[in-house]
Amino acid sequence: MEVLDLIFRRRSIRKFTDETVSDAQIDLLLQAAMAAPSAMNLKPWHFVVVTDAEILRQINRALIFGKMKAPCAVSVCGDLRIGRRAETFWIQDCSAATENLLIAAAGLGLGAVWCGVTPIGRYQKRIAEILLLPKGVIPLNVIFVGHPAEEKPPRTQYDPKKISRNTFGNPWNPD
Amino acid sequence: MEVLDLIFRRRSIRKFTDETVSDAQIDLLLQAAMAAPSAMNLKPWHFVVVTDAEILRQINRALIFGKMKAPCAVSVCGDLRIGRRAETFWIQDCSAATENLLIAAAGLGLGAVWCGVTPIGRYQKRIAEILLLPKGVIPLNVIFVGHPAEEKPPRTQYDPKKISRNTFGNPWNPD
Repeated sequence: MEVLDLIFRRRSIRKFTDETVSDAQIDLLLQAAMAAPSAMNLKPWHFVVVTDAEILRQINRALIFGKMKAPCAVSVCGDLRIGRRAETFWIQDCSAATENLLIAAAGLGLGAVWCGVTPIGRYQKRIAEILLLPKGVIPLNVIFVGHPAEEKPPRTQYDPKKISRNTFGNPWNPD
Repeated sequence: MEVLDLIFRRRSIRKFTDETVSDAQIDLLLQAAMAAPSAMNLKPWHFVVVTDAEILRQINRALIFGKMKAPCAVSVCGDLRIGRRAETFWIQDCSAATENLLIAAAGLGLGAVWCGVTPIGRYQKRIAEILLLPKGVIPLNVIFVGHPAEEKPPRTQYDPKKISRNTFGNPWNPD
């Protein structure tokens, strides 16, 4: 059940120590992110890794829920410049990449939290300004990453009421 | 690097043996799915597990890219009946849950493939009809699951050109 242990270990970590995250660690997170599936294998993503203290400050100021003292942030963006075909599924593709990044962070002993940007217009505009995103590159989120200064137990929020068998409302009741 | 191995092992598997997937295995996939993060912890998801041969046939007929002979399908749906607050992030939340399910499947030696339904109106309508979804429950996708009858090597599609440092276009060049 090792794979479930890893997945259950991913928790939203919002408190971080002062220790920096190395480039090598961030690179592993991005390797994980880019192993995600994407519709038609379009890979409509771009990642902006922020370690500059002033830019981190600006991002924090922009996001009301983002007052996180993290040494690093990764903004997962949709790159719609690759063509109109990317528009249909980019949010799903970039969300899968984000989840891979979060699981990898947990597996490497780092902490991370997903702060939503799209579809909140004022957040999209402000983050795009701060990161100097060109037209057609849309920030889906900001993921703060660091060394955890809080501990949370592994968990699932499994709930059999949220499962149906064959058709909606037919209870799951596994054998 | 064990966590990256697991993430890289997730590949889109479209060929399956006749062997069924046990309820216990499916239950593990759903435990993984429901360990995903969700905005405001709303958990706006519902999972329909399909093992009935006739319903699987109907799903296959509905999806032009879904001619998959799999013994099982899971439709990850958004449950917007929990309130308007769920509308903003349900696609991202359900995509994260889906990615967890796919990684768990790979880790358990199963194969799976993500077939997009939302935002394609005719697919949404048809899948909702087949699965008898009530108003407010929207199928995001159909995930076919089975025992793999094809082998694909683990991989990432890591591409440093898709990474910027601090601001867009500034090359990543890790230390």
